[in-house]
Amino acid sequence: MKKLILLAGLIVLAGFTPKKPFKVVFFGDSITEYGAQPGGFITLLRDRLKTEQKDKDYEVAGAGIGGNKIYDLYLRYEDDVLTKNPDEVVIWVGVNDVWHKRLFGTGTDWDKFGRFYSALIKKMQAKNIKVVLCTPASVGEKTDFSNELDGDLNKYSQIIRDLAKQYNCDLVDFRYTFHEYNLKNNPENKDHDILTKDGVHLNDVGNKLVADIFYKTLIK
Amino acid sequence: MKKLILLAGLIVLAGFTPKKPFKVVFFGDSITEYGAQPGGFITLLRDRLKTEQKDKDYEVAGAGIGGNKIYDLYLRYEDDVLTKNPDEVVIWVGVNDVWHKRLFGTGTDWDKFGRFYSALIKKMQAKNIKVVLCTPASVGEKTDFSNELDGDLNKYSQIIRDLAKQYNCDLVDFRYTFHEYNLKNNPENKDHDILTKDGVHLNDVGNKLVADIFYKTLIK
Amino acid sequence: MKKLILLAGLIVLAGFTPKKPFKVVFFGDSITEYGAQPGGFITLLRDRLKTEQKDKDYEVAGAGIGGNKIYDLYLRYEDDVLTKNPDEVVIWVGVNDVWHKRLFGTGTDWDKFGRFYSALIKKMQAKNIKVVLCTPASVGEKTDFSNELDGDLNKYSQIIRDLAKQYNCDLVDFRYTFHEYNLKNNPENKDHDILTKDGVHLNDVGNKLVADIFYKTLIK
Amino acid sequence: MKKLILLAGLIVLAGFTPKKPFKVVFFGDSITEYGAQPGGFITLLRDRLKTEQKDKDYEVAGAGIGGNKIYDLYLRYEDDVLTKNPDEVVIWVGVNDVWHKRLFGTGTDWDKFGRFYSALIKKMQAKNIKVVLCTPASVGEKTDFSNELDGDLNKYSQIIRDLAKQYNCDLVDFRYTFHEYNLKNNPENKDHDILTKDGVHLNDVGNKLVADIFYKTLIK
Repeated sequence: MKKLILLAGLIVLAGFTPKKPFKVVFFGDSITEYGAQPGGFITLLRDRLKTEQKDKDYEVAGAGIGGNKIYDLYLRYEDDVLTKNPDEVVIWVGVNDVWHKRLFGTGTDWDKFGRFYSALIKKMQAKNIKVVLCTPASVGEKTDFSNELDGDLNKYSQIIRDLAKQYNCDLVDFRYTFHEYNLKNNPENKDHDILTKDGVHLNDVGNKLVADIFYKTLIK
Repeated sequence: MKKLILLAGLIVLAGFTPKKPFKVVFFGDSITEYGAQPGGFITLLRDRLKTEQKDKDYEVAGAGIGGNKIYDLYLRYEDDVLTKNPDEVVIWVGVNDVWHKRLFGTGTDWDKFGRFYSALIKKMQAKNIKVVLCTPASVGEKTDFSNELDGDLNKYSQIIRDLAKQYNCDLVDFRYTFHEYNLKNNPENKDHDILTKDGVHLNDVGNKLVADIFYKTLIK
Repeated sequence: MKKLILLAGLIVLAGFTPKKPFKVVFFGDSITEYGAQPGGFITLLRDRLKTEQKDKDYEVAGAGIGGNKIYDLYLRYEDDVLTKNPDEVVIWVGVNDVWHKRLFGTGTDWDKFGRFYSALIKKMQAKNIKVVLCTPASVGEKTDFSNELDGDLNKYSQIIRDLAKQYNCDLVDFRYTFHEYNLKNNPENKDHDILTKDGVHLNDVGNKLVADIFYKTLIK
Repeated sequence: MKKLILLAGLIVLAGFTPKKPFKVVFFGDSITEYGAQPGGFITLLRDRLKTEQKDKDYEVAGAGIGGNKIYDLYLRYEDDVLTKNPDEVVIWVGVNDVWHKRLFGTGTDWDKFGRFYSALIKKMQAKNIKVVLCTPASVGEKTDFSNELDGDLNKYSQIIRDLAKQYNCDLVDFRYTFHEYNLKNNPENKDHDILTKDGVHLNDVGNKLVADIFYKTLIK
């Protein structure tokens, strides 16, 4: 009799033990940092998961810090990402690695960009974390490749594409997507105000687009 | 009878008064400096003028100095170009204005590039010198706009195209031509060795192409 | 009789012809531009000339434009300075030639700094204009030579000192004076707020000091 | 009697158990890399330890790689230093963190320089490794602080001095020592050829001086 009651209790308990949701952490720079704010793409993703009643299956969190380059991610990975116990980490970095060459003389050499990126992927994969890579979208939205940093952004994006292949990671190619979107929607060849507020940071349309792409890519 | 003698006299006179050839001076940086060396495009042009017996109609000369930017041309215009009494000046500059930002931190702001370029054109046109503008060809020959400086080179080329319109000058759009040539002849997306030795300075094929283009543009 | 009348007329005429004051034009960058504003050193100089009743002997004017480097001065010399018919021109430039290397990658190579500076001096001396040179004071007021640009500022200041000797110009060595002043008055090794608002642009104390130095140097 | 035998046994035993020498690893950039070559300061140290019969007490090894900045040391610390089982690590880095701002636009922000340096010290101290810090000696040997990078080198040296205090590490202040040496031995204010071949990399005199300083500091 006692056993039966215990069993019943266990069954009830099991019913109340929610499955731990699959946790996705977005790891990056200011674009990701702003993504966690109201209206940002991470917030939009979280809202949509709730609306579509998938918030028991998926959880999203941001780990973006403004001004971060690939080696900053490498330095703070343990403290800021591993402690969140993620099942999947989406790395979106590269804009500052290129931009800070011009702004402060402190960008990242392309070969060291690859070296730190590889080391970061390996650390995560060693913990069985699924890693998703993203190419840097834009520093300036002009479509004729006359934004000052287009050459380097294209180069570093290619490095990321190659790393995705090498380490068998999913790739979200924002560099390609943003360019294609602008070719259709930026007939005046404007520097910003299409998907970004300032050429770099997402406006409402940009956040919506990015949230949609991530939803399709990450949520099954 | 008198008329005949007069006519004969005129013929003799004409025979003794050689027509001054139309003088073209190439004004620029190291690309132009090397152009005046054996095998360079200015030398090739001179050879061809001789072969086609046009060397009495046209004379070509180089005024290129390595490392020059637009304001260097402005500074030495009187000494190095005006003293040559040119009928036509071909300005080919811009590579260092962009490149030296990265190499030495001493490139040229885009707005000042335009300002010095305008001032130089005006000085020449005030002397009734015909001015021909050229866009900078390349710093790196990769065709997917992943050469580090492609963005800025495209931007500065557009400034030059706009100046050509504004001041009613002929334009030789090497930026466009080199890209088109590479799209056809650089399937491996190589950084150099198509039209240049090092991404910037012309190899034999490049000198030949440039000489051909200038011949078609300048020689009637 | 006629002669006497004529002579008298000339004397009267001379009496009505006021002596043209000796005109000093300050030619430079934003520091000079701000110098012409209320509280700026040029305004202070003008006030003092009035107070000391020397405003009939001396006239001061500003020709400063923010962001200017030595070659910008060279470009706009005819329009902005020569048109003012100056007897004396005080050139104060150099901060941006060094600083813009870091800020925008568009500073001035040291050798070209000297070349444009020489050309500018020669142009003025050819018009019998007295030329006074100034060294750039500071980008950061720390006294232990740990301001990022101290090395280059010291180097470019030395170039200016050498030019002053070479062209026999008076020199106002603000680089030296500001450093000495800070050694005495900046015990906390502060970056700004001693003679400048931001390490570069003069605060009230700075404007007062600069006006005093110029008064002593320029006004006899 | 038993005691004597025991004692004798201990002596014999001691004789047979070679004491593991105290291992010092030099961790840095090209200066350290060259230090391990013939004539380099690490080689000189090893020779002197042998001459003075201290090579059973001390062992020295190099772990320098050209072009390394502080974050490169952080990335390769486990592979290149920890695997050598050092008792003491001498970190000598900083030249490239400053220099590469100018050379490639890829120097290290001062705040991140401190952050990576701290993280590296902590990692080592957690393994009970004694850590010795060195300030960057020079990029140019001129004594009047007119070497282009003097400002930043002074700033980064101060960061290292502060870190040495904060983490209770020994400090070898080459920035100070080299400047003092040059004040005495570089009356012509030469850019190099006093302690360095090129302003940065040690010549024979420099290697001798550095080896002497390290010997005094590290060997008891």
